[in-house]
Amino acid sequence: MTYLTENPALFEKFQPKIDAYNKDKEDQIKAFDADLVAKCEQLIPSAKVLDSEAVEGLDFLQQLLSKKDLQIVNEYTIKELVDKQVSGELSAVEIAQAYIRAAIVANYVTNYALQFLIPEALEQAKSLDKHLKDTGALVGPFHGVPISIKEQMCYKNKVTHASYVSYIDNVSEESSVSVDILMKLGAVCHVRTSQPQTIMHLDTWNNFIGRTRNPRSTKLSPGGSSGGESACVGMHASAIGHGSDIGGSIRAPAAFANLFGIRPTTKRISLLNGISGGKGQESVVAVQGPLARSIDELDYFMKAYLNEGKPWCYDPSAIPIPWREPSLPDVINIGILPTDNLVTPYPSITRGIRHVADVLSKDPRFNVIDLSDNWYSEEEMKDLYDTTLSLYTCDGNQVQLSMLEPSGEPILPLTKHFLEFGGGKTHSIYSNRMMNAKRDAAKVNIMNKYFNDLKLDLILTPTNVAPAEIPGESYYWGYTSLWNLVDYPNVVFPTGLKHDVEVDSKVPESLNSNEYEKKVWYNDDGSIRYNSKEYENAPIALQLTGKRFCDEDVVAATKIISELLNVRRT
Amino acid sequence: MTYLTENPALFEKFQPKIDAYNKDKEDQIKAFDADLVAKCEQLIPSAKVLDSEAVEGLDFLQQLLSKKDLQIVNEYTIKELVDKQVSGELSAVEIAQAYIRAAIVANYVTNYALQFLIPEALEQAKSLDKHLKDTGALVGPFHGVPISIKEQMCYKNKVTHASYVSYIDNVSEESSVSVDILMKLGAVCHVRTSQPQTIMHLDTWNNFIGRTRNPRSTKLSPGGSSGGESACVGMHASAIGHGSDIGGSIRAPAAFANLFGIRPTTKRISLLNGISGGKGQESVVAVQGPLARSIDELDYFMKAYLNEGKPWCYDPSAIPIPWREPSLPDVINIGILPTDNLVTPYPSITRGIRHVADVLSKDPRFNVIDLSDNWYSEEEMKDLYDTTLSLYTCDGNQVQLSMLEPSGEPILPLTKHFLEFGGGKTHSIYSNRMMNAKRDAAKVNIMNKYFNDLKLDLILTPTNVAPAEIPGESYYWGYTSLWNLVDYPNVVFPTGLKHDVEVDSKVPESLNSNEYEKKVWYNDDGSIRYNSKEYENAPIALQLTGKRFCDEDVVAATKIISELLNVRRT
Repeated sequence: MTYLTENPALFEKFQPKIDAYNKDKEDQIKAFDADLVAKCEQLIPSAKVLDSEAVEGLDFLQQLLSKKDLQIVNEYTIKELVDKQVSGELSAVEIAQAYIRAAIVANYVTNYALQFLIPEALEQAKSLDKHLKDTGALVGPFHGVPISIKEQMCYKNKVTHASYVSYIDNVSEESSVSVDILMKLGAVCHVRTSQPQTIMHLDTWNNFIGRTRNPRSTKLSPGGSSGGESACVGMHASAIGHGSDIGGSIRAPAAFANLFGIRPTTKRISLLNGISGGKGQESVVAVQGPLARSIDELDYFMKAYLNEGKPWCYDPSAIPIPWREPSLPDVINIGILPTDNLVTPYPSITRGIRHVADVLSKDPRFNVIDLSDNWYSEEEMKDLYDTTLSLYTCDGNQVQLSMLEPSGEPILPLTKHFLEFGGGKTHSIYSNRMMNAKRDAAKVNIMNKYFNDLKLDLILTPTNVAPAEIPGESYYWGYTSLWNLVDYPNVVFPTGLKHDVEVDSKVPESLNSNEYEKKVWYNDDGSIRYNSKEYENAPIALQLTGKRFCDEDVVAATKIISELLNVRRT
Repeated sequence: MTYLTENPALFEKFQPKIDAYNKDKEDQIKAFDADLVAKCEQLIPSAKVLDSEAVEGLDFLQQLLSKKDLQIVNEYTIKELVDKQVSGELSAVEIAQAYIRAAIVANYVTNYALQFLIPEALEQAKSLDKHLKDTGALVGPFHGVPISIKEQMCYKNKVTHASYVSYIDNVSEESSVSVDILMKLGAVCHVRTSQPQTIMHLDTWNNFIGRTRNPRSTKLSPGGSSGGESACVGMHASAIGHGSDIGGSIRAPAAFANLFGIRPTTKRISLLNGISGGKGQESVVAVQGPLARSIDELDYFMKAYLNEGKPWCYDPSAIPIPWREPSLPDVINIGILPTDNLVTPYPSITRGIRHVADVLSKDPRFNVIDLSDNWYSEEEMKDLYDTTLSLYTCDGNQVQLSMLEPSGEPILPLTKHFLEFGGGKTHSIYSNRMMNAKRDAAKVNIMNKYFNDLKLDLILTPTNVAPAEIPGESYYWGYTSLWNLVDYPNVVFPTGLKHDVEVDSKVPESLNSNEYEKKVWYNDDGSIRYNSKEYENAPIALQLTGKRFCDEDVVAATKIISELLNVRRT
């Protein structure tokens, strides 16, 4: 059965182009290291096995990379990578080669890469080595650091399709401002990573390469829409990844792959020169931000990008606020919200947040405040969530459909889920404005109620109902999308805990009856959908939210919390 | 003939409420100083005379105020007013009384006041005096400084109607954030000033009090929509005024009344808790900002408001960037644009910009670059202006009409002019988004072309085609509205020159044939509309534009320019 813009005959004409696009990857990796490719094909199980078993991806890295390469990709932080080039211990080329090898292995395991940039990365690394040798100076704080980039961000003279098949011939005239900044600061971009069709799933699945796998359990979703990044960084295939987020697209992937991720306050990081279906849409504003293995590296990225990259010099919509010193009080008031009152999280998430609240309440630097009785009601949350979903689709999906239609590509299940947000109804501009006004009132209310009246510095919540989702089944966005709606900054961090198939098997006795709760907990026939066994190996991560523009404080607090949880680097 | 939402029978029912609302003003001024009121009625000509002659308003102040009051309202800057309270030379009550008397005289001349707050202002002044006496400390940088406020900004427990008759019973539960900030910093708010129907004329005319007059020539318009503020500040009836601007509404009034005005980069000054037809509209974002008699006072306001007021503590949409030290280079690259290529300014404006360019080119601190051959074409400007106008009305004016309809109030000519912007067409959200994308492209293009490639620090342009407009005939917004569309900050400043009926009488030989040029220069029958005699006494002011968020630099440069032009305080 075809749906909306689907046109199988038309799509068939695009298939050779998709094949050629994908073959370029094959060609690049074979040209780079045919031996490694052969070993990967021998050692790494078939897609069928990976898609059905809870395989930990890093095990293959361990088996396939040399000791030296493993040391580079596993052990050194961004700062150490840079320092070791200054000391002459490592060259940019050596680092690039190690990361490219990891990126190849990672792709066999998780299928996260849309486009490799191997020759470009090696060329760039070579020129960085020359620059350091000739001048004795680093190009910048990312000198020789391999960074993966979500594909929707344009890259000069390369195809940028943002997972829309109709864009398969779209060669970018210039790179996105953020890519330019990272490269000016010395970053080596060796791979452009996958995102889902329409870039609007909390999962990563498209008609170019199919689904991307979670590096912690290959049968699970890596989250989305920056799931290519979480798979890549989670496989140590890049030192840090750069993603984007309009409803949870940095945070869900970070959480699902046991990483740190930040959704900064909007307009701190430039969005200029990217492709998405959000063109001209400003009711819920997208952001870009990094996914990292440690909070220190995430901090390093933000500071370097803002203070040395100065995006406002290239993008007039970027706000000229540098990455400042944090200004947390001696005792941090942290509100804990175990459930948003709309959709009850799965047991491991509830266990995770209780654990962290418990740890924090024993530390004199934190004053823990339970928000359970102080949060918005189920009805109020439903209203806000309905508003968010309607804002995503209020043009009747006209922009999205105009990008899907020219290729007739198949509409994936989570694309359909997204296109039907708010009924997929075409609103009037008047209605859009009234929803904006409701959004603004919520933004003010959160400031007044929580940050001003209750004097909270931070709010700790789940990132998602599940520790990681079953592919094609990430339905509820509310834990992350609320913060896109009202635009308060968040950091997602691993708690150090994992889902426990036994401990986390119990379904709560009382569940809500709203449609979102039902979709998460029940099958259509009314039977319980939740099955603890599915989430084996999934990490438990939480979301920390701060005051607007106080991104630095959220990061600083995450450092303290991570130390208390003993999660240094994943 | 009725138009759209007009309903004379319905409107008639509101008339008694409007009368009662207006009678409150009469009662307040009589209760405060019946003698002054009697003298005003005796001395100041009738509305008929003022509406038809080029009367300078300040002459009446000179005749009606005591020497001491004149000294207070004419001679002392904000800083001096504050200092003289510290030294004990003046009390807040004395200052308030002097300004209230000026405000009464000013209202007879210019009809700018919607609501007086005389008892509140005196009470507040008394308590400020007590505070200073008791503690020896000022409440803040506006201690005892009388500030006028555009009425659309809510004032706690008072009616706020924003010139919509249907809002005549709308009592505000809280004050607007900016009013609260000013009062927390010690400001005394003694009067709320007029704005036009829909707040969308570059003129000031509504169904509550009729038209407001220009203090420099009472037969002319004071500009709008903050024309109540320009009349008030221009009559020395407040020490500084606080207005708002979405298409020129601070800048046209400032220019028409020989004042300084700033349209800051959006979201530096809070808009929270105001009433307008722009609810939820974010394609062209409104700003608030001051109108002042000197650039130093405007600078003082911005610094105090931002650095001590910290609007971001009360409004999550306000950006936490303090008022910083300017960072202009030793030699300022200033681009001069005598015409926008779409609508040719009237001769006095052209003379004014040539004069200023000439003065600046003789000063080593400026590198003057003529942009005449480097600006957008007529066609490109028309496209941008059409886009701007369509963005104002793209909801088919549904928000505006929903506010006009419940009272059936008469639709004024310039309201009709505004409602027909872009044909008053109802656009789809898709169309709105595509226009937003065009706006964003223009914003980037201006940065790249002028501020980055040409390395300009500032761009000097006309503020308006006319030095001040004939009431009901401010048609073209392009010189100001362009900068609302792309959101670069502007300061308007008086050049010290005035329109000269003889010198400025010549119609340019070649005019464009586009509809906007025609509307400005010609009557409907094709005869020339421009008549130099109409503009007797009108001041010549220009508009200086800077890089986004570099408002401080625009102010700093205006200080240098004003010194060179010998315009210290008007």
